[in-house]
Amino acid sequence: MYSFKNDYSEGAHPSILQALVETNLVQENGYGEDQYSVKAIELIKQSVRNSNVAVHLLTGGTQTNLVAIAAFLRPHEAAISATSGHIFTHETGSIEATGHKVISIDTVDGKLTPAHVQAVLEAHEDEHMVKPKLVYISNSTEIGTLYRKQELMELKQFCEAHHLFLFMDGARLGSALCSEENDVSLHDLPSLVDAFYIGGTKNGALIGEALVICRDHLKEDFRFYMKQRGALLAKGRLLGIQFMELFKDNLFFELATHANTMAAKLKRGLREANLSFLTESSTNQIFPILPNDTIVELQKNYAFLVWGKVDETHSSIRLVTSWATKEETVTAFLEDLKKLVK
Amino acid sequence: MYSFKNDYSEGAHPSILQALVETNLVQENGYGEDQYSVKAIELIKQSVRNSNVAVHLLTGGTQTNLVAIAAFLRPHEAAISATSGHIFTHETGSIEATGHKVISIDTVDGKLTPAHVQAVLEAHEDEHMVKPKLVYISNSTEIGTLYRKQELMELKQFCEAHHLFLFMDGARLGSALCSEENDVSLHDLPSLVDAFYIGGTKNGALIGEALVICRDHLKEDFRFYMKQRGALLAKGRLLGIQFMELFKDNLFFELATHANTMAAKLKRGLREANLSFLTESSTNQIFPILPNDTIVELQKNYAFLVWGKVDETHSSIRLVTSWATKEETVTAFLEDLKKLVK
Amino acid sequence: MYSFKNDYSEGAHPSILQALVETNLVQENGYGEDQYSVKAIELIKQSVRNSNVAVHLLTGGTQTNLVAIAAFLRPHEAAISATSGHIFTHETGSIEATGHKVISIDTVDGKLTPAHVQAVLEAHEDEHMVKPKLVYISNSTEIGTLYRKQELMELKQFCEAHHLFLFMDGARLGSALCSEENDVSLHDLPSLVDAFYIGGTKNGALIGEALVICRDHLKEDFRFYMKQRGALLAKGRLLGIQFMELFKDNLFFELATHANTMAAKLKRGLREANLSFLTESSTNQIFPILPNDTIVELQKNYAFLVWGKVDETHSSIRLVTSWATKEETVTAFLEDLKKLVK
Amino acid sequence: MYSFKNDYSEGAHPSILQALVETNLVQENGYGEDQYSVKAIELIKQSVRNSNVAVHLLTGGTQTNLVAIAAFLRPHEAAISATSGHIFTHETGSIEATGHKVISIDTVDGKLTPAHVQAVLEAHEDEHMVKPKLVYISNSTEIGTLYRKQELMELKQFCEAHHLFLFMDGARLGSALCSEENDVSLHDLPSLVDAFYIGGTKNGALIGEALVICRDHLKEDFRFYMKQRGALLAKGRLLGIQFMELFKDNLFFELATHANTMAAKLKRGLREANLSFLTESSTNQIFPILPNDTIVELQKNYAFLVWGKVDETHSSIRLVTSWATKEETVTAFLEDLKKLVK
Repeated sequence: MYSFKNDYSEGAHPSILQALVETNLVQENGYGEDQYSVKAIELIKQSVRNSNVAVHLLTGGTQTNLVAIAAFLRPHEAAISATSGHIFTHETGSIEATGHKVISIDTVDGKLTPAHVQAVLEAHEDEHMVKPKLVYISNSTEIGTLYRKQELMELKQFCEAHHLFLFMDGARLGSALCSEENDVSLHDLPSLVDAFYIGGTKNGALIGEALVICRDHLKEDFRFYMKQRGALLAKGRLLGIQFMELFKDNLFFELATHANTMAAKLKRGLREANLSFLTESSTNQIFPILPNDTIVELQKNYAFLVWGKVDETHSSIRLVTSWATKEETVTAFLEDLKKLVK
Repeated sequence: MYSFKNDYSEGAHPSILQALVETNLVQENGYGEDQYSVKAIELIKQSVRNSNVAVHLLTGGTQTNLVAIAAFLRPHEAAISATSGHIFTHETGSIEATGHKVISIDTVDGKLTPAHVQAVLEAHEDEHMVKPKLVYISNSTEIGTLYRKQELMELKQFCEAHHLFLFMDGARLGSALCSEENDVSLHDLPSLVDAFYIGGTKNGALIGEALVICRDHLKEDFRFYMKQRGALLAKGRLLGIQFMELFKDNLFFELATHANTMAAKLKRGLREANLSFLTESSTNQIFPILPNDTIVELQKNYAFLVWGKVDETHSSIRLVTSWATKEETVTAFLEDLKKLVK
Repeated sequence: MYSFKNDYSEGAHPSILQALVETNLVQENGYGEDQYSVKAIELIKQSVRNSNVAVHLLTGGTQTNLVAIAAFLRPHEAAISATSGHIFTHETGSIEATGHKVISIDTVDGKLTPAHVQAVLEAHEDEHMVKPKLVYISNSTEIGTLYRKQELMELKQFCEAHHLFLFMDGARLGSALCSEENDVSLHDLPSLVDAFYIGGTKNGALIGEALVICRDHLKEDFRFYMKQRGALLAKGRLLGIQFMELFKDNLFFELATHANTMAAKLKRGLREANLSFLTESSTNQIFPILPNDTIVELQKNYAFLVWGKVDETHSSIRLVTSWATKEETVTAFLEDLKKLVK
Repeated sequence: MYSFKNDYSEGAHPSILQALVETNLVQENGYGEDQYSVKAIELIKQSVRNSNVAVHLLTGGTQTNLVAIAAFLRPHEAAISATSGHIFTHETGSIEATGHKVISIDTVDGKLTPAHVQAVLEAHEDEHMVKPKLVYISNSTEIGTLYRKQELMELKQFCEAHHLFLFMDGARLGSALCSEENDVSLHDLPSLVDAFYIGGTKNGALIGEALVICRDHLKEDFRFYMKQRGALLAKGRLLGIQFMELFKDNLFFELATHANTMAAKLKRGLREANLSFLTESSTNQIFPILPNDTIVELQKNYAFLVWGKVDETHSSIRLVTSWATKEETVTAFLEDLKKLVK
């Protein structure tokens, strides 16, 4: 049984574990003030080519979203998210638990445009309604799509003009940035969004997301917010060592590229089998549409999510690749599939 | 320079890292539903000799405290803590951030008694005041003391009689249970408190606290609370593997015993140098009182916290030992000290 | 200029002011423990024919909604509301500010059915999503419609079967109960919902909503929640006297009936002028569709909300009547209108 | 039986009721945008001699405290209060329910000094602790004392220097300002504190506190916060009419002066009976110390709070006077008392 269920099924890339082993007995300061965290943050600042950003290392996506969004907003302010956005549906109301409404927008492709946000602003006219203040986007999105540079520029420009913060959930940022269709560089992001994070958990780390705060006004006292929400690890070195390893020699990008390459191979094979897809994805999540009986057969040897019903006899499934996906597994899956659908 | 600043200065015990390496490429379910977490929870249930408890693995002490206490209380209910209690002073108002007041009680030794709690109950008489509902204790305490079995029994009995929950912060539970003065067993705890946690971070793990919920009523829907506060790791295996390793062969107790032994050796040496202590501690944190100039000299080779002023010429310091403290370092420290104080 | 903008444009019914004047110098206990509040609660219990309910007097609708819903839910639980529901759109995220998500459902008529709720339950499957727990309905709704007894019975039955609370916002309950189309009695409500409130502010009081909690489990410690949210008035007598007056001789129903009668007269007149309506309303809010130029003309002498665009040349408006609406004003409005639309 | 229990035992001053009656049928805008609220705010700005302040009318003290403090603070920031401060003990954790810790300071007289606040600042050194940001004081205090101008100036200067907000709970501000010992004018307050409120409930209104925000930075979006916490009344006229009446001809000060005069008369009489006092009060709350058996006798004809035990045979009681206290009642009480203690 091989699992395409997600990109966090294995542990960490071996070189990360190796770094943990090698540094293990060095005594360091706690709470993210160790030399490794300092070094990791320095490397990330170099990667984004901006020494003025603030970088903080947190443990996971939900935690990073809630700590950051609650820190950025005043009590009556709300976040705007696509209905498919992770904070709206899959984080157990974590943003609301900090007191803030998440306003949702239905989209086709999981992406927000200035027109979407404009409609929200127009519907919120006075103090009887929340004040929309932060636009939450995911890149890549929860359904595998990604933002082009032009799209981000337009969104950023709109947000600036309307005094909105633009926040990018980068749980799968590596996959987005390393996609064939992508034209955004990591170092473009500080001028395109007010804050974003670089997902480690889904790209080869044991845990860890690196939050990058670009707007000065949002940086103040951020470690207080982390501590208050339980996000400041006593052994912050655990995060520092991992991001140091991911960013010292481009490992972060290599791992994401591998995941994308495996997904692209899957996609090609599925197309050759004349299958169509629910969304256009060039990242590490793809959503092919299969006959239901084929799905049942495939499930005997492969694990994956059945995403949704398409018609009476077909459903979409989600296949996720990662840094750990082996090419021979992809080949085997495609061969098995082709036997079933021919 | 050697640091006695805390018990989280190094990484993890080598056998924990070894287990991470060995299991690394096995594919597992996410969010704590992996085989290692399942096994770790099974081992912990065996250790507490109670299969009816609910066990959850979280990343750190502040997170565990806030997720659990916010889950256990209704909005108008408050926690009671010693003024020295970690939730009252050193967690950035994390409990208040979930909406609950923490009522503080000044104590000499960091420990709460039924008389303390009784006084709080008497002062809270109607709906114009919060309703005290949960008694928070730390074992060992923040100043190195511990609870005897009889003390816990009396506190539990009082709490039962007054419909209060008794919650034990066990960030340093290992050190308490392995202390020479201790008469409490891990398997006594399910009948002595309503919930407690077993600290991994300060006893040899990279991160991790195992929360044990003993009272049925408090178990319901607990994974929702974890997810909502960002405490459910995608790679929950990271926690599972570590606790599996700590509990499969008594490693947890061995590590704590070692830390205590090193602290006891320090204590004996300090006594031989005719030094006194701020608190009576038989755990891995000791608080000797030293001449200020001695402290300055020691700081040239050793790192530690200066705890507080005792008189014009003396201060207390905090020395913390851990699973990683080497006996030769303790010996060297004592020799250096004796040269200074003779 | 006469205003049909809302049902809270005037002060209180004169007999309420009279009662305030007459009782003014009697010394009473504070915080709702005065004889008038006690008497008002007794009268309400008689009106609902159930001495087992708990009744609390609060100042306004938003306050009552937020105090009650936050009291009823645990942190991970969510409310379900129609998109048009007041808590979802027009209370500045007050429910979210207490930590709870409001899940919205698009409806045609502002009313929820078991099918609506069923769809929400199916979409919320595990701990990565909030747990839907409370169904919020308004009667009459924000767009003038009302619930029939059979509809409430079905909804209640569904909620019981799925362990959901059913909560009725009764800011305009009087108008609903006194509508020609209504077949629900006030005394039916304790068996049809778990909690509801009887709106005073929009039915002749200066301020005041009487919350009726029917389910035992939800009654506990409710005064703590009121105090904690600033809803316990020092001079609770202000609320008690008003509700005593409203319920001692059916004044509450007389006032609502008058408002409905005025709305019905308006509706008849508008129909005679061949105008149609956005929603089917038999309560004190009606939503006729008018040519835009007619609206402009009417606005010279009458104030009302322009509700929404219907087509390029038509819009819907909202006309609200109240206990204070005079029949001659309605007549004059209709005459003016008929001159414009003929 | 006559009650000296508090200053909210009766309804409103008759001229306030008269104003409610006279304006009753005038149609007005809702939510505080009526002409009376506009006028009341204008009068208050004249009284404080500052047209740049923002004034908002809310219903009660707890509500005003929680709406304002939650609006002024960021999530990790805390309020500092005397242990006797209303927000610390008698508002059911309402501040904590908005997410903020209240740091308490033991005082003799219920008043905070720069030295008190300095000690708090020194104890809060890093992100592991909350960030003290707002100093909460009550004037008059909960035990009848008041702040002199020099004390307020020193406190304000300290707060400015340390970037702290100074907030004054004025539930009994009238009594403080009209005390014989007072040297502060209402129009001094905008330069002495960052925000304060003028209590109506305890000085002749049915309900109502007028919050005055002096610091520009704290004014933004304040109506959102009011609505979100349920503090924006549909019939805001109820508050506007009352404050218009209180401030159009000095009624506010006349009522407070009367209450103080009655308390002073009580105090003189008690002194003549050789009784001492728990606190030095020149406001409308006094705390004489009586033999326990005298208290029991007095309770047959008078209601009051027994404040606390002084020694085995004596207790302090609280006597509160108000705008409604009659001189003959005070005379009668003193005569009855003198019979008992001679």
